[in-house]
Amino acid sequence: MERTRVGWSGMVKNTYMRWRLPLVCLLWEVAMIVLFGVFVRFDPEADAHWKEEQRQKNLTSDIENDFYFRYPSFQDVHVMIFVGFGFLMTFLQRYGFGAVGFNFLLAAFGIQWALLMQGWFHSFENGKILIGVENLINADFCVGSVCIAFGAILGKTSPVQLLILTLFQVTLFAVNEYILVSLLHVKDAGGSMTIHTFGAYFGLTVTRILYRPNLEQSKDKQGSVYHSDLFAMIGTLYLWMYWPSFNSAVSNHGDAQHRAAINTYCSLASCVLTTVAFSSLLQKKGKLDMVHIQNATLAGGVAVGTSAEMMLTPYGSLIVGFLCGIVSTVGFVYLMPFLESKLHIQDTCGIHNLHAMPGLIGGIVGAVTAAAATEQVYGKEGLISAFDFTGDYKERTPSVQGGFQAAGIFVSLAMALAGGAIVGEWAGCREWRRKPRSRLWL
Amino acid sequence: MERTRVGWSGMVKNTYMRWRLPLVCLLWEVAMIVLFGVFVRFDPEADAHWKEEQRQKNLTSDIENDFYFRYPSFQDVHVMIFVGFGFLMTFLQRYGFGAVGFNFLLAAFGIQWALLMQGWFHSFENGKILIGVENLINADFCVGSVCIAFGAILGKTSPVQLLILTLFQVTLFAVNEYILVSLLHVKDAGGSMTIHTFGAYFGLTVTRILYRPNLEQSKDKQGSVYHSDLFAMIGTLYLWMYWPSFNSAVSNHGDAQHRAAINTYCSLASCVLTTVAFSSLLQKKGKLDMVHIQNATLAGGVAVGTSAEMMLTPYGSLIVGFLCGIVSTVGFVYLMPFLESKLHIQDTCGIHNLHAMPGLIGGIVGAVTAAAATEQVYGKEGLISAFDFTGDYKERTPSVQGGFQAAGIFVSLAMALAGGAIVGEWAGCREWRRKPRSRLWL
Amino acid sequence: MERTRVGWSGMVKNTYMRWRLPLVCLLWEVAMIVLFGVFVRFDPEADAHWKEEQRQKNLTSDIENDFYFRYPSFQDVHVMIFVGFGFLMTFLQRYGFGAVGFNFLLAAFGIQWALLMQGWFHSFENGKILIGVENLINADFCVGSVCIAFGAILGKTSPVQLLILTLFQVTLFAVNEYILVSLLHVKDAGGSMTIHTFGAYFGLTVTRILYRPNLEQSKDKQGSVYHSDLFAMIGTLYLWMYWPSFNSAVSNHGDAQHRAAINTYCSLASCVLTTVAFSSLLQKKGKLDMVHIQNATLAGGVAVGTSAEMMLTPYGSLIVGFLCGIVSTVGFVYLMPFLESKLHIQDTCGIHNLHAMPGLIGGIVGAVTAAAATEQVYGKEGLISAFDFTGDYKERTPSVQGGFQAAGIFVSLAMALAGGAIVGEWAGCREWRRKPRSRLWL
Repeated sequence: MERTRVGWSGMVKNTYMRWRLPLVCLLWEVAMIVLFGVFVRFDPEADAHWKEEQRQKNLTSDIENDFYFRYPSFQDVHVMIFVGFGFLMTFLQRYGFGAVGFNFLLAAFGIQWALLMQGWFHSFENGKILIGVENLINADFCVGSVCIAFGAILGKTSPVQLLILTLFQVTLFAVNEYILVSLLHVKDAGGSMTIHTFGAYFGLTVTRILYRPNLEQSKDKQGSVYHSDLFAMIGTLYLWMYWPSFNSAVSNHGDAQHRAAINTYCSLASCVLTTVAFSSLLQKKGKLDMVHIQNATLAGGVAVGTSAEMMLTPYGSLIVGFLCGIVSTVGFVYLMPFLESKLHIQDTCGIHNLHAMPGLIGGIVGAVTAAAATEQVYGKEGLISAFDFTGDYKERTPSVQGGFQAAGIFVSLAMALAGGAIVGEWAGCREWRRKPRSRLWL
Repeated sequence: MERTRVGWSGMVKNTYMRWRLPLVCLLWEVAMIVLFGVFVRFDPEADAHWKEEQRQKNLTSDIENDFYFRYPSFQDVHVMIFVGFGFLMTFLQRYGFGAVGFNFLLAAFGIQWALLMQGWFHSFENGKILIGVENLINADFCVGSVCIAFGAILGKTSPVQLLILTLFQVTLFAVNEYILVSLLHVKDAGGSMTIHTFGAYFGLTVTRILYRPNLEQSKDKQGSVYHSDLFAMIGTLYLWMYWPSFNSAVSNHGDAQHRAAINTYCSLASCVLTTVAFSSLLQKKGKLDMVHIQNATLAGGVAVGTSAEMMLTPYGSLIVGFLCGIVSTVGFVYLMPFLESKLHIQDTCGIHNLHAMPGLIGGIVGAVTAAAATEQVYGKEGLISAFDFTGDYKERTPSVQGGFQAAGIFVSLAMALAGGAIVGEWAGCREWRRKPRSRLWL
Repeated sequence: MERTRVGWSGMVKNTYMRWRLPLVCLLWEVAMIVLFGVFVRFDPEADAHWKEEQRQKNLTSDIENDFYFRYPSFQDVHVMIFVGFGFLMTFLQRYGFGAVGFNFLLAAFGIQWALLMQGWFHSFENGKILIGVENLINADFCVGSVCIAFGAILGKTSPVQLLILTLFQVTLFAVNEYILVSLLHVKDAGGSMTIHTFGAYFGLTVTRILYRPNLEQSKDKQGSVYHSDLFAMIGTLYLWMYWPSFNSAVSNHGDAQHRAAINTYCSLASCVLTTVAFSSLLQKKGKLDMVHIQNATLAGGVAVGTSAEMMLTPYGSLIVGFLCGIVSTVGFVYLMPFLESKLHIQDTCGIHNLHAMPGLIGGIVGAVTAAAATEQVYGKEGLISAFDFTGDYKERTPSVQGGFQAAGIFVSLAMALAGGAIVGEWAGCREWRRKPRSRLWL
């Protein structure tokens, strides 16, 4: 029975290369099994033995487990990573299956490594990494940043090179997150800095290094067609709808999760209107550009990633969404051609407009919101709990916290640029510099 | 990089019109920011300060927040509004992207206004509208009724006119809901009356006013094609699957939510079988009509909208679904051509069959179920809590409640017809009456 | 308004047959209403009267209802059955709408019968079947096994024959489940044995009996096309993403549900990598086969169906996923052509590779994991609760439990083969043996 196949030409000429993808996948998975065997165990909440102890202490409220606070959001985030990012990238005429398929491969590959790397930094106890539902969400978050970078690199690398980039990006993500969350005590529940700023600038740096001037010849492959656009709208809508879950998934139980969902909902609604307005304004004849609708409408979710769990207030969220719809659409129309022609950054899916700039805005909004926090608004205990201040927060006041938040933006940016440059050079130089192709990969 | 665009011709000739959509969107969003800034604040459950007070009173069960009872259902409803309604309308060959895209714009526009209008009536305290997850669900519900009306109007109006219609419909929805829920104390958790009856008859009235005889010339655009039908099935299935969440989303915690989910599940399952049966029966050669499968299978969910949270019982739900599958399919085959040829109602998506008639049936079933309620079935306290009877319900017995429920149907119907007529005339008369077009808009 | 129609030719020639599908659907639904009216009532948790009693006893924690532990998972499972299985089968070029549509009909038909049959065995009290959210999940599970069998039979039978097969398969499923769960006290929360092994071998047996040699002539209809493959990926991804909910949906509250989600997540991630590796290895030129990506990536979820809620550990799950990706892909490449040419089993969607073999592996892994359980790992009470051991488990130790688990595999296999043979012969012999068709049905 003959069926269509996903192929990446280039491999067909070289029998040596034919073995590379299978080998990398198999060796990697064996390594994962060994490392998980040595290091990874269940979180106490998922452990049968722990439950018995709880019962003996009469702590038997089954539903007060962290699992039930987070599992519905976990599934929403899962859908965003695999369906949302996967289908968003199908707008390119010939990349449809490749985008969904490789996004799937990268994500499945990345979450395992992310469980290890993030677990190493955040849930390492007595020589073991203990994983529960929050670890699964964080692994999905980490892979989300890989999917973002993939949006810029899409079509320029072989699958094996994508896997290698994923490996390094996940590692750098975990280090960056550790610096921000554990060392600087920065709050970033929805990942404006750790996920979006880091992922986007990492991807843009790598794509700059992989610049090939003759890629332009194959532009015809980049057009979108009617059904491609409907598939892409599936991706857009699932990202848009579930973003409140994304920004609230790892927030504190109760009011913080509730607030994060409301703020994100408001910001996204506002963002749709300014995207439509500017998309229509900036086009000849007032038509709407489908690429703007598919992308810029999401910028409002990115830009409240840090501040959604804070007391941003609904109108504050509307303002952030308002601005980001404009910034993102203007970015697509004016900045993206400039980046390509002058800076040689071929940003296939426009992640600079959807993730990089809104991510930076999100970091700034977060810093300002944190600096503006008062006991009057949060309550004394509420303030301590919202920002994880220790003791009686003598050493860290809201304004100091705001400063650390701002520092987090620069750290993320520096890690992304330096990391992207090193990884891009190292991984990319050896082989496809020698034989530049005029053809995209998938 | 050249990409396809959503265009509505007509605008190209008139540079004045080119500025209308951007201007309306931007001014509207600025107005929203001002109004939210003045009026909208977080619900206590989403407020950091409130949580501290709760903790000091030792009321620390985080998961007993309303948020955790409703958030999973909220996300399901969100998917129904944006993916469900959006993709259901893609069955029309050339409207695919327009249907999804404008549904997205309308909904994002409408939910903000709905938060204000519904909040004004239902959660206004000390000069502020307090919003939490239940407000978000209700805003989605309100916009659901706009999406229903959009199904009749689709293709006949410009985007700006759609936005104006949305503005008025949301306002009328909130007034109607206030009359039913707050004045008449009618129960309508799944919105058979407030959402479906109101939305459908509003849309049908407006489409009657916008009737243009020469629209028939462009019928060729209305055909469906293979892939369009698969996209439409995505819409159908998500509506069908998540309808139990829709009908239970704002019910009382515990048994009422549980019951609403079970009743809706049963009614929908039954509805599929009679839809298939009558679709096959009423077609020459016994073939199935895909439009029936895409629409009439959902009528069972509409028709238990009012009664699902009551003690309708599983077999009662099966009966309701049984009848509605038949009514809806027969409506598509016999009533819809009649409405178009005799009454000049061009019901693009058949909302009369899916929402109007099943909505009326739903109102009636709700009235009967309420009137038949007994202490034996509900328990005394259960009866009071299920119908929000005050005191010892001397003044309102189940049979009186049934009467009020019936009154709710007529109020909704009257509001829809009168409101639709006024709004349709006012919004529609000035401009597109003067220059009738033979072409659909999108 | 002319619209495309789903047709199955063959019916057009015979006016008698034209009446069969409507008649079967209507009579069946009437029978359901009568049986539900006599037997089915709400579970106490969904009953208004029960709630009042609880309140009077001061047992008022609304959220400790089983409903809130299971409803989000229920909705995920619901999506898997209707969207997941439906769209997974759209990869066939001309079956797209038929696959989704008939999957919808079968499932809506099957869940009603499943509620009755499973309720009869598991929640029959005082002459009534009491249904709650767990019954809805189990009905979806049961119908999942019908969808699996449908994957082998797809295109070979008329709709009425599909309904008859569904009727018998659901009945046999309930009997088999009763033997395993209630008589043998086998644990099988994710249904490796009851759902996958049983469903797949039942379907394969039926498709063997329906073998028609001249079916090969219409192979051209079996090709997949670009957009079909993207639709199929929607099915694949929703199955993949929501599988943790599938395997944890009916597990014990708390740690068991948590563990089941983590184990399934790990197994599925691992499975993707070995599927990609072997798909690339086994193809000429190292290309990936899209059918493998769409199917074999899911085998990891099937294979931890029994053991996911046990202390399988994350690395154990990785190992199971690792092996199943290989087994399933190798099955597609080598075993499937052999089954078709030598054993005359035309397995349209490859369910032998995705459900049958991984289901058997899942049963074995479950038996081994159960046999290896120790007090040290589970705690004494934890062990008793995890395996529902009664008393002080003198009569049933973990190793005995392992033996019973293994017996469960054989019982499921025997029920599937014998049941499939009898039902296939009985339902199939009379009519389409006499007039073999060279054409597929849909």
